Amino acid sequence: MYDRREVWAILDRGLVAHVGVALDQGPVVIPMIYARSDDTLYLHGAPVSRLLRALADGAATCVTVTLVDGLVLARSALRHSMNFRSVTAFGTARPVVGAGEKARALALVLEHIAEGRASEVRPPNQAELAATAVISFTIAEASAKVRYGPPMDKPGDLDLVVWAGELPLRVSAGPPVAAPDLGSELTIPPSIIGWTR
Amino acid sequence: MYDRREVWAILDRGLVAHVGVALDQGPVVIPMIYARSDDTLYLHGAPVSRLLRALADGAATCVTVTLVDGLVLARSALRHSMNFRSVTAFGTARPVVGAGEKARALALVLEHIAEGRASEVRPPNQAELAATAVISFTIAEASAKVRYGPPMDKPGDLDLVVWAGELPLRVSAGPPVAAPDLGSELTIPPSIIGWTR
Repeated sequence: MYDRREVWAILDRGLVAHVGVALDQGPVVIPMIYARSDDTLYLHGAPVSRLLRALADGAATCVTVTLVDGLVLARSALRHSMNFRSVTAFGTARPVVGAGEKARALALVLEHIAEGRASEVRPPNQAELAATAVISFTIAEASAKVRYGPPMDKPGDLDLVVWAGELPLRVSAGPPVAAPDLGSELTIPPSIIGWTR
Repeated sequence: MYDRREVWAILDRGLVAHVGVALDQGPVVIPMIYARSDDTLYLHGAPVSRLLRALADGAATCVTVTLVDGLVLARSALRHSMNFRSVTAFGTARPVVGAGEKARALALVLEHIAEGRASEVRPPNQAELAATAVISFTIAEASAKVRYGPPMDKPGDLDLVVWAGELPLRVSAGPPVAAPDLGSELTIPPSIIGWTR
């Protein structure tokens, strides 16, 4: 149905998915953290959330992940663009109910955000698992869109005295900031010290 | 209806909006560049786009802009979070048909991406304006969500031997890359040389 390798690579790089469902009052799009396992995306949140309840009820769902790679600066206004990679995935969701699958899904989400973090921290206990809604979204159909490379000006514009090119953009991390209540003997762990995206 | 100052500040900082509409086959969420003017967001694209046509037909629309400010790293798995700012705006759209309003809207979108760029480049001509669909989305209702600050661990977890804190994230620009067909006498213009977000 779709190029899994390309779609999965984009999903694995993103930090936030924009999840859309159609509620009675109209469409709602919410940013959520997530993780991918094969053709499944795991999402989580508070069980009272309107969106989470709609997802758990099996509403038709669209999940979009967008990576912004740069500005494309052309000689003419309308040839400006962005270099980006995005995935739009369609499917339906179901609630994850078993404590074992919930724990695995939540560990995947944590690993998706910072690889290695799940083994550094205290795992969820039974009460925490019970208080957390986890959703499993299976991709039924997906498409990737990618733009890269320089601007494509019209031949007649090439001699204009206007700078044209690309401005590469990326998500970059600043120096980690220790929590105010953290003991001074603790050092920055592997999951964070080498974090890049 | 909403805190305009906070909502506007987030919308003015974002690069990409995730625009959701409910089509017959279900919800669709598409990333789009945009610009804000008072309570109006301008979007544009190819007139043949399914989403653009639905917007032009006045479909109920949800526009979400999310800024990721950092990872929140707690001592326990489930207290992990993200620092972020997001706006979810609801309303309906209409097509922009007049060439004058179209040109103004497209200049705003360009200025939104790179301030000062609209006056550096060749503006759209009549044929280009006619071939471009521009949509005006008026915010009827909006809400901002913001999380900032350190992790909030449970009191019982504070003595765990686990590093906790924040990893600040931002969008950063690399060195501009000139188009391969650019004359070597052209220097990087003001809109790009100082670009930050």
